[in-house]
Amino acid sequence: MDETFITLEFRKGILHLIDQRLLPVKEEMFLCSDYRDVEFAIRDMVVRGAPAIGATAAYGVVLAAMEYADVFDSSKEAFRVELQKACDVLEASRPTAVNLAWALRRMLSKYDSTSCSSAAQMIGVLHQEADAIRSEDIATNKAMSKIGNEIVPPNATILTHCNTGALATAGWGTALGVIKEAHYSKKNIFVYADETRPRFQGARLTAWELMQAKIPSKLISDSVAATLIRDGCIDLVLLGGDRVAANGDVCNKIGTFMLSALCKLYGVPFYSVVPVSTIDFSIASGVDIPIEEREATEVTHPGGVQVAPDGVEVFNPAFDVTPHQHLTGIITEVGIIYPPFKEHIEQIRLSLVR
Amino acid sequence: MDETFITLEFRKGILHLIDQRLLPVKEEMFLCSDYRDVEFAIRDMVVRGAPAIGATAAYGVVLAAMEYADVFDSSKEAFRVELQKACDVLEASRPTAVNLAWALRRMLSKYDSTSCSSAAQMIGVLHQEADAIRSEDIATNKAMSKIGNEIVPPNATILTHCNTGALATAGWGTALGVIKEAHYSKKNIFVYADETRPRFQGARLTAWELMQAKIPSKLISDSVAATLIRDGCIDLVLLGGDRVAANGDVCNKIGTFMLSALCKLYGVPFYSVVPVSTIDFSIASGVDIPIEEREATEVTHPGGVQVAPDGVEVFNPAFDVTPHQHLTGIITEVGIIYPPFKEHIEQIRLSLVR
Repeated sequence: MDETFITLEFRKGILHLIDQRLLPVKEEMFLCSDYRDVEFAIRDMVVRGAPAIGATAAYGVVLAAMEYADVFDSSKEAFRVELQKACDVLEASRPTAVNLAWALRRMLSKYDSTSCSSAAQMIGVLHQEADAIRSEDIATNKAMSKIGNEIVPPNATILTHCNTGALATAGWGTALGVIKEAHYSKKNIFVYADETRPRFQGARLTAWELMQAKIPSKLISDSVAATLIRDGCIDLVLLGGDRVAANGDVCNKIGTFMLSALCKLYGVPFYSVVPVSTIDFSIASGVDIPIEEREATEVTHPGGVQVAPDGVEVFNPAFDVTPHQHLTGIITEVGIIYPPFKEHIEQIRLSLVR
Repeated sequence: MDETFITLEFRKGILHLIDQRLLPVKEEMFLCSDYRDVEFAIRDMVVRGAPAIGATAAYGVVLAAMEYADVFDSSKEAFRVELQKACDVLEASRPTAVNLAWALRRMLSKYDSTSCSSAAQMIGVLHQEADAIRSEDIATNKAMSKIGNEIVPPNATILTHCNTGALATAGWGTALGVIKEAHYSKKNIFVYADETRPRFQGARLTAWELMQAKIPSKLISDSVAATLIRDGCIDLVLLGGDRVAANGDVCNKIGTFMLSALCKLYGVPFYSVVPVSTIDFSIASGVDIPIEEREATEVTHPGGVQVAPDGVEVFNPAFDVTPHQHLTGIITEVGIIYPPFKEHIEQIRLSLVR
């Protein structure tokens, strides 16, 4: 596993995604030939991870532009309506991660700010923008990894949750990117990976990426982390984020809050690793972030096998919110944000709008 | 689901156990015709739950006595050696729960204190003792339920973990017994059941028992409990215990400690419901309790389906220890033990040795 690991690729008018539902047992590509395929791929979690979803959706816009090329040639107004419709469908596929809406906004804004004389030129512009989102994400991850590695002590045992690696991004990874950077810089680290119920992203994807990178590690049930944290077995926790509020509250995979509370209680450093694009400056605090509830079968049928009674009621939120008071810092490509988070996040916002 | 629900039954020289590995999808009985079958049934978790294991092992001793009846007739000394061997095999099946060793000690002590002239009489005495362990467990559970129900407020939302119902005991249940008592006394309760990775006892067994008893409830992944506790959705936590130390530390299913820490942090009452036989007066504190580590496939192959890479390393402890400081009380058949736990548990010990 290195930076050349391909998770999503746009080739000959088709978006190729590694099918994360089948990993690690099967390595198969899922092909999207129109934006509806892309919507399905995001909703059904063929691809997941906030930055990966953003890049994937951007290519979905390219596919929509290709589909409506004839409309562009006959009426640019009608084309703009179709493009907006496609973006609305893509945006509705998953409600929590902010990168999805961010990438779609950026694609539309690129279209609106570019005057194209032909459909081919317009498609080329959008394709280039999607490629830019993708390559910028990888560059951002690399920058975060270098910055994050500064706070990883030698011989650290690191706990991580869900998957934040090459599979969760356009490539390389966020929290798992920092972990790889620490490993490749020979810090002799050890990693505990939470399996991450209900979708097993830790077992399926993180354990797989850790093994590919030959990083010493163990897989645990989510409930095991608590005793490891209490017993001084964990030096720091590194995980991702699907949306960060303006006050530093982090919305991330269900289970994150539980880890944060235990780390706070037992004094274990706890970091979220996210690109600045994950910060939603428009949301004042985590309580305003919509939490996606997913279907009961994720809980009742792990791996497709029934383990709960027919008709059982299930509460299955995909994410939770960690209050900023539980965070040691937020690692981004522009530096590590420390408390007071609200002030420091506001400084980042101001630096972006100049 | 009521008190007549049969989980284990000794009939015509064969121990019938409901096969908990197959529930709730299939209701099948697992038959034990000798004590080796019983050892397998405990180790492979055909039957689980500390009190259920105790009663099951007691019948295992009856089966051993039947097997060595001829030896008894020729040499009582040789018979005693075989009985001890069988007990040693049974005791090694699972190391953490104290009820197993307690039941075996009680069976051996019954044998040693009774002079029998024939094998048939000896088998009858042991059979009667196993029946007594079983029926006393049910009576104990009923007593605990009445006592525990006193601290359940009307309209309470209760969180529980693992399975502590009729399936975990000789019948009725410990924590789930209290929950059923509260429900049948029309307190209008609602229950959240943790699925309890890695073996899904909450999903497989507790959700099933709750539905049988028509108790309004929802199943959740273990990681979801933390936010429910924080957000004031849980009025109290009721769960079992596999071994309680003399200072009140409770060893219970992995995940219990995590819940206890969050309840402590957010001021939610947290009770362990256990018969006095679960208290190990010989162990000063929880750090001395051996924690069983189980095989990796429980984590890597939930429901038999692979979700983790081949060869992944796994850390799979079956239990954790909750420090007594996190407990509001320990509900037993002789009353609710409140802090200071050490002093109050010592009083119970003294009352037993008089």
